Amino acid sequence: MARKSLPLSKVYGLLEPGPVVMLTTAGSGYPNIMTMSWHTMMEFEPPLVGCVISDGNHSFDLLQASKECVINIPTVEIAEQVVGCGNTTGAKVDKFERFGLTPKPAAEVGAPLIGECYANLECRVVDTSMVSKYCLFVLEVVKAWIDPAVKDPQTLHHLGWGNFMVAGERIKLKSKMK
Amino acid sequence: MARKSLPLSKVYGLLEPGPVVMLTTAGSGYPNIMTMSWHTMMEFEPPLVGCVISDGNHSFDLLQASKECVINIPTVEIAEQVVGCGNTTGAKVDKFERFGLTPKPAAEVGAPLIGECYANLECRVVDTSMVSKYCLFVLEVVKAWIDPAVKDPQTLHHLGWGNFMVAGERIKLKSKMK
Repeated sequence: MARKSLPLSKVYGLLEPGPVVMLTTAGSGYPNIMTMSWHTMMEFEPPLVGCVISDGNHSFDLLQASKECVINIPTVEIAEQVVGCGNTTGAKVDKFERFGLTPKPAAEVGAPLIGECYANLECRVVDTSMVSKYCLFVLEVVKAWIDPAVKDPQTLHHLGWGNFMVAGERIKLKSKMK
Repeated sequence: MARKSLPLSKVYGLLEPGPVVMLTTAGSGYPNIMTMSWHTMMEFEPPLVGCVISDGNHSFDLLQASKECVINIPTVEIAEQVVGCGNTTGAKVDKFERFGLTPKPAAEVGAPLIGECYANLECRVVDTSMVSKYCLFVLEVVKAWIDPAVKDPQTLHHLGWGNFMVAGERIKLKSKMK
């Protein structure tokens, strides 16, 4: 894949539609992958992203320690791996190895990019004041990558209980108002 | 529409996929509608939802004052109204009237349900400690409604700059792991 740098001002267009993402973190031994849907944009530029990561997850500890991660956006082609990563714990398993995913070095952070994902957002934790009450981390996207060959990516959107919606038709609407 | 009460434990399945929502608030004169994509689940049950609402929006003031709102989930059938509500300010316009939407009384809060939306979540503001820094309100869903006749709702997912993805195919994946 010829990964291209994406201007940070365009990051919100990737996360606003609410795709399932795979959050990677680095730590002792091997990096981890966590499947996640509880995220929201919080600021356009620099892009801030709020993520809720339960303190029962191995990624919670790795993120607390390293203060860095990558938000990787998968498509339906790797749906089995997405669900697999959501149903295992990185405390015991190297998920890259287990699920045949490819770690690629990031430019700005220690956590790896997932090679099979069409977009990767390198992030630093910038606010932990809401972690103790809500497990809510505020991340700043410091570098964004996209595969320009992927048009209309078929992102996954969790509906609960193992059900997913796959991104469908694209439409453009004209703003009627000034 | 025969609107049915939805158990609060099922609310996350409506918001996790990241649909564009229409937030209604009540206030002096007429109720308001705001189109919004910056939201995330924060807890399963009772369902907590984090929403970023810019303090430049009329809804910010109404929500601060009333501490109540309804999250309404629209589908592609009313896409024009969704975008229209996103491009006008309720300070000057009664959006229900302007866009031909139907306010319906809620059970638990003063803000109205939008009759044309297939799901409506009545909410109370439960935490404003992150409003000054991030315009982030924490809402608790106190009552949820759904139109059981709508299968596979064609929700809208904002891609930026007036572009939207419409919810596509549904798939079910088996968890491989215990």
